[in-house]
Amino acid sequence: MSPLPSWNDGAAKSAILDFVARVTTPGGPDFVPAEERLATFDNDGTLWCEQPLQTQVFFLIDRVKALAASDPGLKDRQPYKALIEQDFKTLLGFGKQALLELAFATHAGMTEEAFEEIARNWLATAKHPKLGRRFTDCTYRPQLELLDHLRANGFKTCIVTGGGVDFVRTISAAVYGVPREQVIGSSVKTRFEMQDGRGQLVKLAQLGSFNDAEAKPQNISLQAGRRPLLAFGNSDGDLAMLRYTKTGPGARLALLLHHDDADREVAYDRDFGLSPLSEGLDRATDYGLTLVSMKRDWATVFGSAA
Amino acid sequence: MSPLPSWNDGAAKSAILDFVARVTTPGGPDFVPAEERLATFDNDGTLWCEQPLQTQVFFLIDRVKALAASDPGLKDRQPYKALIEQDFKTLLGFGKQALLELAFATHAGMTEEAFEEIARNWLATAKHPKLGRRFTDCTYRPQLELLDHLRANGFKTCIVTGGGVDFVRTISAAVYGVPREQVIGSSVKTRFEMQDGRGQLVKLAQLGSFNDAEAKPQNISLQAGRRPLLAFGNSDGDLAMLRYTKTGPGARLALLLHHDDADREVAYDRDFGLSPLSEGLDRATDYGLTLVSMKRDWATVFGSAA
Repeated sequence: MSPLPSWNDGAAKSAILDFVARVTTPGGPDFVPAEERLATFDNDGTLWCEQPLQTQVFFLIDRVKALAASDPGLKDRQPYKALIEQDFKTLLGFGKQALLELAFATHAGMTEEAFEEIARNWLATAKHPKLGRRFTDCTYRPQLELLDHLRANGFKTCIVTGGGVDFVRTISAAVYGVPREQVIGSSVKTRFEMQDGRGQLVKLAQLGSFNDAEAKPQNISLQAGRRPLLAFGNSDGDLAMLRYTKTGPGARLALLLHHDDADREVAYDRDFGLSPLSEGLDRATDYGLTLVSMKRDWATVFGSAA
Repeated sequence: MSPLPSWNDGAAKSAILDFVARVTTPGGPDFVPAEERLATFDNDGTLWCEQPLQTQVFFLIDRVKALAASDPGLKDRQPYKALIEQDFKTLLGFGKQALLELAFATHAGMTEEAFEEIARNWLATAKHPKLGRRFTDCTYRPQLELLDHLRANGFKTCIVTGGGVDFVRTISAAVYGVPREQVIGSSVKTRFEMQDGRGQLVKLAQLGSFNDAEAKPQNISLQAGRRPLLAFGNSDGDLAMLRYTKTGPGARLALLLHHDDADREVAYDRDFGLSPLSEGLDRATDYGLTLVSMKRDWATVFGSAA
């Protein structure tokens, strides 16, 4: 079977297949040894659906509801009120980092292990409010195929997300085939302490890194240790990662997904307050980015890889 | 050939071989799947010699000498004076973090790529002042064998160093067989910017993380994504990593190297100002640490693995 069956023939699919062939052909001018083949993918809006809100915001809503059960005053105070009432307009006004920091504050004092247990259980059952199926079933099938194709060609695939690193790690292996250590994400500072004879990392309310924009290449270098050969994003928050990738020496590929498919998903770009795509559309050619149109380039949008 | 030929038979060697056998025996009570087998090693004093000063301090001395050539006033100002004169007593008084921050300040404004080029060139030729051979030939042969033995048994081996992550990454693959992305170390903050059409990460003077003590388990969790099964250190700065490792569920092994061999290396522990071993000796039994005596447990100290 030819690779990428859920991708329509066209410029984007050709660019991907040609690029992978070039960097993996021994003796070719663009050959790169397998141990240096790094591909980095944004998560929200690139690997799975981020509309009407990122998955982790829905997780936060449910967590705040649970807290409100034991602290009834919470539901009358902002920003908790907007979360509990799912007042999307107000929530979008807060911005992504503020929402993430709220999520962090909600889990301060918890061990990393306890947090992961809660996140894992939630992701095992919680359903997307519009699509009506589990969030982990809201992944894009063409991207799962692309991750597989890259790995089959010796690439290490990493997720580089603005979401919480420990949140995404609970599902990265099962959903994307990406080992937990290959997830780079936002994080809080922690405190190391002994609890009942076990060394634990306790989450603090203090932000460690908000892994968006310039922080993406910074954290890729710190944690993955090299410049990617291929990167894939969908918003202006991915542009630093895409340009860091594309401007490296030798053959590089930087891809930008455009959500232009109102029938099968949602058509949005400049207007999505939490994670807009605006500069990316205006400067794609300047920046050497390969635009991927969901409408034109994907034969199928959702579902597991065949 | 039996594994670990440079280790003498005894409690430490048995503990290692028994542990590796237990966690890799399918169906056994302590079996751990290969993808979860993580081993973390401190670098200075654990994998290579850190006496009379850590390798990176010698690098700093040479860098400051180079700077002093174009700024003659430097040699009369502290801390540069002590560095240039190799006044070890004064240098030791500064402490490890202060020296590291000085090293960082010395390279502020440089791209990560440019820094690595300088570090790589220096490490390719610079010689240890007492041992008279390249620093990269001052590694401990029993540890190279142990790294190999762990990898042969499906472990991922990581270096978790107080040294600068980009400094150590220049030699980790060639010297230790550890890919650069498996080095976790101290780091500075960076700024992402375009320079001559290429996205670059520029080193700032601001400390990102001093990867010592509690920062070791914190950064292991953040970057390697899981609690180690085995950890190896040699100073009190490794105790948090060792205890984080040892107190995890299931079989775990935490090893502490004691430099007690004045004939073949240097005998030191509580008195080494830059990186003392004191609490570790006092509490080894409480903490469940396996003490490794260089004098008693190692048949050979230096040299490449056979």
